[in-house]
Amino acid sequence: MVRGSEIREGELAVEVPAARDAGLVFIGRIRTPWTSRDDAPRQGRHDGPVCRLEIFEPWVPALKGIDFYSNLEVIYWLHLSRRDLLLQSPKNNRSTRGTFSLRSPQRPNPLGTSIVKLVGVEGNTVLVRGLDCLDETPLVDLKPDRCEFSPLAPPQAGDFEAE
Amino acid sequence: MVRGSEIREGELAVEVPAARDAGLVFIGRIRTPWTSRDDAPRQGRHDGPVCRLEIFEPWVPALKGIDFYSNLEVIYWLHLSRRDLLLQSPKNNRSTRGTFSLRSPQRPNPLGTSIVKLVGVEGNTVLVRGLDCLDETPLVDLKPDRCEFSPLAPPQAGDFEAE
Repeated sequence: MVRGSEIREGELAVEVPAARDAGLVFIGRIRTPWTSRDDAPRQGRHDGPVCRLEIFEPWVPALKGIDFYSNLEVIYWLHLSRRDLLLQSPKNNRSTRGTFSLRSPQRPNPLGTSIVKLVGVEGNTVLVRGLDCLDETPLVDLKPDRCEFSPLAPPQAGDFEAE
Repeated sequence: MVRGSEIREGELAVEVPAARDAGLVFIGRIRTPWTSRDDAPRQGRHDGPVCRLEIFEPWVPALKGIDFYSNLEVIYWLHLSRRDLLLQSPKNNRSTRGTFSLRSPQRPNPLGTSIVKLVGVEGNTVLVRGLDCLDETPLVDLKPDRCEFSPLAPPQAGDFEAE
């Protein structure tokens, strides 16, 4: 089975520019049941197993109010991914698609996003269902799902701007 | 009007750890009609103005196949944000919420995400509706909206794992 880091027939890689346009700080760590890429789901499901978002200091107080929402958006760093693929062959059949037309973990900035169901909050840990990532995946951001969120700040001109 | 970088009453900031856990490469630049934070919408709308995602080399070939989708997920870097706020007061009324319970641009890793409507592709440029960010915002990632996307790669054990 072709997995992980090898290049498949038809795939196209480039020399990657230095990734120093901006820097990330990992705000936590994700605990899931999946320890190998062969076991993890392709996409999370909202009736899947409970996973844990362990928030690091100094960010724990930033969880205040998060239990108000039933759906959260989680952004994480797919730390095992290669970042140089322009064309990929998901079925390994020589047929290729551009990286930006796929939700593959292999991408120039390997950020995964999921909408998850909030199960509960225990101290520095947020319990959720709906993730698809490996155990120990670094956590980058956590926010209310846009579908549930109404901005608290007052509206601005752009909010009424339709074509 | 309190805007931008000042701290409001009740807000809590911390000394931020160095943001060097991972590095981003900007894959493009977003062109929108909004040049000031006072004009930009709080949230994009799918009948809003057409915005342009200008993809940089060497990433342009990675657009192959993107016109198959009508909804795309866009991830961008909110380059004017402060990154040290734990508690924020969106209404500037002393009432605070944790940063992770808000979609505020001020967050430890200032990543914005939007689901946009694809209008068309012209060379290295993707035309979309539904953004809310400032002109010249750096583009970080672009992928099919998860609602429309069925993984092309074969299913794995985790895909069937429900509790």
